[in-house]
Amino acid sequence: MQPFVFHNPTQIIFGAGSVDRVGKTVARHGRTALLVYGRDSIHRSGLYSRVTSALQQAGVSWIDHGGVKSNPVLSHSRAGVDKAKASQVDLILAVGGGSVLDEAKAIAAGACYDGDLWDFFSDRATVQQALPLVTVLTLAATGSEMNSGGVITNEETQQKFNLSSPHLFPRVSILDPVLTWTVPADYTAYSAVDAISHLLEGYFTSPDPVTPLQDRFVEGLVKTIMESTEQILAQPAHAEARATMMWAATWALNGLSTAGIGAYQFPNHMIEHSLSALYDIAHGAGLAIVLPAWMAWQADQHPAKFARFAREVLGCQLSDDRQCALAAARGLKDWFGAIGSPVTLSEAGIPANDIPAIAANAVMLAQKWRMPAYSAEVIANILQRAA
Amino acid sequence: MQPFVFHNPTQIIFGAGSVDRVGKTVARHGRTALLVYGRDSIHRSGLYSRVTSALQQAGVSWIDHGGVKSNPVLSHSRAGVDKAKASQVDLILAVGGGSVLDEAKAIAAGACYDGDLWDFFSDRATVQQALPLVTVLTLAATGSEMNSGGVITNEETQQKFNLSSPHLFPRVSILDPVLTWTVPADYTAYSAVDAISHLLEGYFTSPDPVTPLQDRFVEGLVKTIMESTEQILAQPAHAEARATMMWAATWALNGLSTAGIGAYQFPNHMIEHSLSALYDIAHGAGLAIVLPAWMAWQADQHPAKFARFAREVLGCQLSDDRQCALAAARGLKDWFGAIGSPVTLSEAGIPANDIPAIAANAVMLAQKWRMPAYSAEVIANILQRAA
Repeated sequence: MQPFVFHNPTQIIFGAGSVDRVGKTVARHGRTALLVYGRDSIHRSGLYSRVTSALQQAGVSWIDHGGVKSNPVLSHSRAGVDKAKASQVDLILAVGGGSVLDEAKAIAAGACYDGDLWDFFSDRATVQQALPLVTVLTLAATGSEMNSGGVITNEETQQKFNLSSPHLFPRVSILDPVLTWTVPADYTAYSAVDAISHLLEGYFTSPDPVTPLQDRFVEGLVKTIMESTEQILAQPAHAEARATMMWAATWALNGLSTAGIGAYQFPNHMIEHSLSALYDIAHGAGLAIVLPAWMAWQADQHPAKFARFAREVLGCQLSDDRQCALAAARGLKDWFGAIGSPVTLSEAGIPANDIPAIAANAVMLAQKWRMPAYSAEVIANILQRAA
Repeated sequence: MQPFVFHNPTQIIFGAGSVDRVGKTVARHGRTALLVYGRDSIHRSGLYSRVTSALQQAGVSWIDHGGVKSNPVLSHSRAGVDKAKASQVDLILAVGGGSVLDEAKAIAAGACYDGDLWDFFSDRATVQQALPLVTVLTLAATGSEMNSGGVITNEETQQKFNLSSPHLFPRVSILDPVLTWTVPADYTAYSAVDAISHLLEGYFTSPDPVTPLQDRFVEGLVKTIMESTEQILAQPAHAEARATMMWAATWALNGLSTAGIGAYQFPNHMIEHSLSALYDIAHGAGLAIVLPAWMAWQADQHPAKFARFAREVLGCQLSDDRQCALAAARGLKDWFGAIGSPVTLSEAGIPANDIPAIAANAVMLAQKWRMPAYSAEVIANILQRAA
């Protein structure tokens, strides 16, 4: 184990019906909220009126900031910052999935900053303060509800970059698994891929070979996510599986799985961010394409951990580490395909001819994240395995 | 899964040498600390001068409150409250194991309260505020470093009771595993028993049969604690195993393993508290006596979860659930014995004739914790299996 600092102050209110606690929860943090949400579904499902009724009852007023896109964009985030400043809101209330939460974090930071919002993403400024953030989660996937990071795409520069600050932990996240019962099969699958990827980035890139506590934590979570996803796909309103999946996805990126494993990396996210910056593809779908390719590329070089994963999680019984490591990559790719995700670029409609352009885009993030081993050539090599 | 609220705001600073950050850490919370610690070992080991040098460098003054006993007592805690009030300290700094931390929590609460400290333990008052608490942990066992509870023995009434309040989460806990390298074999074993018991109380008493996430979390932790303990007993300064054990013991009682499992109980702690209130026995040793007996008693009635434990953690291959459940109780008892703990009352020098008196004492806690199923007769029945 390696030294670390762990501090996760987010309060989680979990359970069926917990969304109705949003009014009193928000009221503890202010009287005027910027209400950040996505497209029409929040109106169609009745969630918008449920949340705003609770706000009204608690004496909280709100300014609407709807229309957040999946893979949220800078221009819309800037508009949110303008609204938050103009109305001098006390806090941000995000109602939605990871995209809505990420944009809400950007707005929470931008509302307390005089410069341009992109400064935080391009490392020209660090977040010194932020408005309080309360979230109501509608999709179990990104873990944004219990961490301090967010990702925004700058449409002008085609950069999908992240910001991170201890000021951006949500004060409270309300996790009502019933809100996820209507998530369709494709997004259920992409969400599972996303959560599994969050766990495996650290698991496979940790420099420390002796982290049994974190390894078992990750293996147990991945098994649980796979099991729950299969149950949900068979029965979308499976209450237990939806609840388990929701809490599992939160654990997958709240700092627990990586505390003590040393300086790990996010190579699959680095590459995938270029896919979803350049193409209209769900983040989880992009990861389902990248992760098995990266694993196959990496398994050759460091087979031991991949072999362990294959044995502990996928039930691989091969005795040879290298064969077992390759079986891990193949097994996960097969499972991603079986739950309905694309697993190759061509299945996602991305031509192999684009690989050099994708790699060139990804290198920007490799540099920002200080991963010099990932040259454009290396990234293209990995992507070739996903053609 | 059941509804829950999870909020654990303690910051953890983990790693070899992290104790040297105590000065700056404390200085963020005040200028004058009550320094709570145990017996002479902190002086012999040089830890006292290391901590106080760091405080001096950071401009923090301190009032000594040494002499905390294992199974800390009310009279000494009251003396700490008096010192904290007289010197108007800004915060409490606890340097020690779970007993020191528990007493420090009691003092932190008592210092902000006009009534008698025992009011909090006897449910005559709830903690409304507390002084900030910073801890430096020297024994990986109780989990007190990342939770909001504490246990104190009232010597006059022979009651070993607990208090709990969100105000009592340590602000910061410094976990330097090197400080645990000199923990002797017996306390290493008792610590493992304690941490395992914390995990299994919820695991075996959850009313919800569908908690795969929490079950795998517990099973992975128990396996890791068993593995690390064996490594430490073979090589006391085993850096990796000591580090793993330290973080595992923290996870074992920081609210993660029980969030979502519903209204669980602490029957083994309920019974054990009477053993260590009435006899000079380490809490972990008491649990090693009680837990296998309680498991054997309970396995008859609800074999499924015990059988799962035996299969997942102890490698039991019996196909019959009831046989496997009994093997779980036997297997854990054997392991507790193998690592050097007493596993029967007689091994701890406690005569079987005392069982009625122990049960009568334990019933007080069963009532406080609202566990009416545990009459004196039931408790005596369980203890008979540990004679």
